[in-house]
Amino acid sequence: GDITVDQTTAILQAAEKLARSRNIPVNIAIVDAGANLKAFLRMDGSYLGSIDVAIKKAKTARYFNIPTGELGKITQPGGAIYQIELSNDGLITFPGGVPIKDQQGVIIGAIGISGGSIEEDHQIAMEAAGSIL
Amino acid sequence: GDITVDQTTAILQAAEKLARSRNIPVNIAIVDAGANLKAFLRMDGSYLGSIDVAIKKAKTARYFNIPTGELGKITQPGGAIYQIELSNDGLITFPGGVPIKDQQGVIIGAIGISGGSIEEDHQIAMEAAGSIL
Amino acid sequence: GDITVDQTTAILQAAEKLARSRNIPVNIAIVDAGANLKAFLRMDGSYLGSIDVAIKKAKTARYFNIPTGELGKITQPGGAIYQIELSNDGLITFPGGVPIKDQQGVIIGAIGISGGSIEEDHQIAMEAAGSIL
Amino acid sequence: GDITVDQTTAILQAAEKLARSRNIPVNIAIVDAGANLKAFLRMDGSYLGSIDVAIKKAKTARYFNIPTGELGKITQPGGAIYQIELSNDGLITFPGGVPIKDQQGVIIGAIGISGGSIEEDHQIAMEAAGSIL
Repeated sequence: GDITVDQTTAILQAAEKLARSRNIPVNIAIVDAGANLKAFLRMDGSYLGSIDVAIKKAKTARYFNIPTGELGKITQPGGAIYQIELSNDGLITFPGGVPIKDQQGVIIGAIGISGGSIEEDHQIAMEAAGSIL
Repeated sequence: GDITVDQTTAILQAAEKLARSRNIPVNIAIVDAGANLKAFLRMDGSYLGSIDVAIKKAKTARYFNIPTGELGKITQPGGAIYQIELSNDGLITFPGGVPIKDQQGVIIGAIGISGGSIEEDHQIAMEAAGSIL
Repeated sequence: GDITVDQTTAILQAAEKLARSRNIPVNIAIVDAGANLKAFLRMDGSYLGSIDVAIKKAKTARYFNIPTGELGKITQPGGAIYQIELSNDGLITFPGGVPIKDQQGVIIGAIGISGGSIEEDHQIAMEAAGSIL
Repeated sequence: GDITVDQTTAILQAAEKLARSRNIPVNIAIVDAGANLKAFLRMDGSYLGSIDVAIKKAKTARYFNIPTGELGKITQPGGAIYQIELSNDGLITFPGGVPIKDQQGVIIGAIGISGGSIEEDHQIAMEAAGSIL
């Protein structure tokens, strides 16, 4: 299964609404099951540098089917997969990217949020991804 | 002036509606006045290869403040700016990208459409860009 | 608001004058509000490798609206945004890049200095950016 | 011999003055004898896409010690060096880039102009390069 435009739009709007209500201007990126860009939105006043970070968070989460922050725990110096960030034209391994699952638990894509603190970004990503369940 | 999220969303939804009504699955990309990605949507069933084409069309239209197809007329062999496509990490110089102007005629961004024929892509881009006037 | 040529030239000349008076040959890069290159100067005898560093410092400072050295504090191993340098075609997160604000406090661009010590680079960037206030 | 900051600044200011007097907002790039960026200025209102084009014109002119337009004559389909534009991270082979010579005729760098017509760009480049003779 692959994420549809309807699911994508629902998740993106959920993320935007959450970010607005918390006064955190963010960049929102959603990729499909093939890790290809499906949707993107940059809120007014959010960082220009977060465009690429949000997209890379979404891709990273789908590349390895894991929240990006989990991956970051083992990419530190001495870690099992140290420097894996250099692969795939650049990964982001701090929080803010999470896989998107359908109601059967199948991963159909991923979302990346960038612009707030890493905790805020992760929370918005989790809640937005869960909004279609 | 720079394009806002509200303008961006209005244009993106107009483009999606036009493409749906014509049964043409497309990729829609919108960049701001600084040629940075502002929004993106890939419709279900549209080409994966059109993600990058749509983004490059939008960027090209803003880079030179011109519909991309106009630029393509002078990039042909023997043309005034032959091979300019190799600059800026790759330009797209066939139709489908157009500048977005506000009601005062100031260019505030650009839209790129890819997925249909070049005539269809250009038409959707023009109509969507004009929807906020 | 976006930085003008007149503001850019004033800042660039201030930076060059400061660097000359301190006998520190540097590379000076200025980007606009869209993080696009606006001006650049490499002083005689400055490092060739600092061309790209200066440009990336300016872009990084505008990408995240922060002095680059501040960003570097949280990109270290174990830091909140470890390895973010791999995004955006390469960030520079040590001192020498600072946002440029106008008299109303609006960020209109950024400057990056590279060639001296990081303290010297940062100091020149700060003073030059402040010269138009 | 290599171009100095004083020569660079003189040429850049000459180019800017010529462009202003002709009402042609351009991007001006100057590289040194090593084809490394020495100076750059983007005039207000000039194309964002011309940043990279101006830099590539200057580099191309120095890479092959020839006005870029001359090179373009033999890069056409069927030409002796067809598709050479793909080398060196992208060459620009239409007019607007010219070598800079000192009073002894030694090439010390090159200038690239982009933003006007190719004839206008070439003319400004030629006159500005000649301003130090």
